[in-house]
Amino acid sequence: MPYINVKMTHEDAGATKEQKEKLAKGITELFSEIFGRGASSAVILIEEVSTDNYAIGGKTVTNIREEQKKN
Amino acid sequence: MPYINVKMTHEDAGATKEQKEKLAKGITELFSEIFGRGASSAVILIEEVSTDNYAIGGKTVTNIREEQKKN
Amino acid sequence: MPYINVKMTHEDAGATKEQKEKLAKGITELFSEIFGRGASSAVILIEEVSTDNYAIGGKTVTNIREEQKKN
Amino acid sequence: MPYINVKMTHEDAGATKEQKEKLAKGITELFSEIFGRGASSAVILIEEVSTDNYAIGGKTVTNIREEQKKN
Amino acid sequence: MPYINVKMTHEDAGATKEQKEKLAKGITELFSEIFGRGASSAVILIEEVSTDNYAIGGKTVTNIREEQKKN
Amino acid sequence: MPYINVKMTHEDAGATKEQKEKLAKGITELFSEIFGRGASSAVILIEEVSTDNYAIGGKTVTNIREEQKKN
Repeated sequence: MPYINVKMTHEDAGATKEQKEKLAKGITELFSEIFGRGASSAVILIEEVSTDNYAIGGKTVTNIREEQKKN
Repeated sequence: MPYINVKMTHEDAGATKEQKEKLAKGITELFSEIFGRGASSAVILIEEVSTDNYAIGGKTVTNIREEQKKN
Repeated sequence: MPYINVKMTHEDAGATKEQKEKLAKGITELFSEIFGRGASSAVILIEEVSTDNYAIGGKTVTNIREEQKKN
Repeated sequence: MPYINVKMTHEDAGATKEQKEKLAKGITELFSEIFGRGASSAVILIEEVSTDNYAIGGKTVTNIREEQKKN
Repeated sequence: MPYINVKMTHEDAGATKEQKEKLAKGITELFSEIFGRGASSAVILIEEVSTDNYAIGGKTVTNIREEQKKN
Repeated sequence: MPYINVKMTHEDAGATKEQKEKLAKGITELFSEIFGRGASSAVILIEEVSTDNYAIGGKTVTNIREEQKKN
């Protein structure tokens, strides 16, 4: 407790093992500081999805990234 | 806002990039028409899972598809 | 198949029964048109959360709405 | 991007508005520091569930809390 | 590990505390028997949603239940 | 109805097809016994994630497994 699920786009070579460790540790500490519990029981689950599969405002991140490159 | 997560079975060659774009755009427009918000902020996330990993009524879609072929 | 989970903020009096029926029906039809399956088996699950509990770019929707009113 | 869903038990009077703002802001900053993106687009969604509805190792948090009080 | 999320419709008076304990215990034991791990670390999270908010094949469970009563 | 999502770590060669069938069938039967519904409509979705992507108490399962081997 708590359970925290991070869904992020897989970009470049993807999140490294070190980045994922840092994220899991950091979120656990932050939660524990704010709520005073969870330090040993927090579950963090990270999932990476293709930029083709994540859309904001009806546009996939793949297309958003392509538009950004043009500018 | 909203956040919409689509979990679907990976069948044949999987959902194409075009199908996923169409789905993300379509759901965003539908939501925005009904609720009057979300056109620029809706997040759509599509995940495909193996037919071995999705079950209905206790049977995996793999097994359901095999039974369908027999009939 | 598919399973589609919609998480939206509870705003004003919340989504009406009719809006939720429309959304569930519309997403199911859209999915079925694009992928040629799911018309009878799609599961749509709608969850409303407080604007205090949904944040974009580190700001809760409650605070975003307050800033919008000021402008 | 990313989308981060926090599910936590509703304990005592529940998470306050301030705690939720702090959590949303903190996770967004942490993610942005580690991955160099998401500062304006991260979506954080917080859901509280009853301690009757969250179990660890087959025991609900309600029962775990009661055992803790006895010791 | 594992994390198991049950989303069910809130029907009649809702799931009782005893039913939820039984479900959490039963799923944890089942998982542990099949995979040989998780007995002490499995997280089970149960969420009940209104029958207005859960749709199968484009129809809400509210409407499905009403059709069933007529027959 | 219900919808049940199992997230588990991918360990050794991963869950076999038979284990996943057994899990889907077992959870469906258990739910149906307790609640008297869902036998034909329960949806079970199983997702496996890398042990690098699942953390408990701020440590990834990869690191927890390594510590266990040392003892």
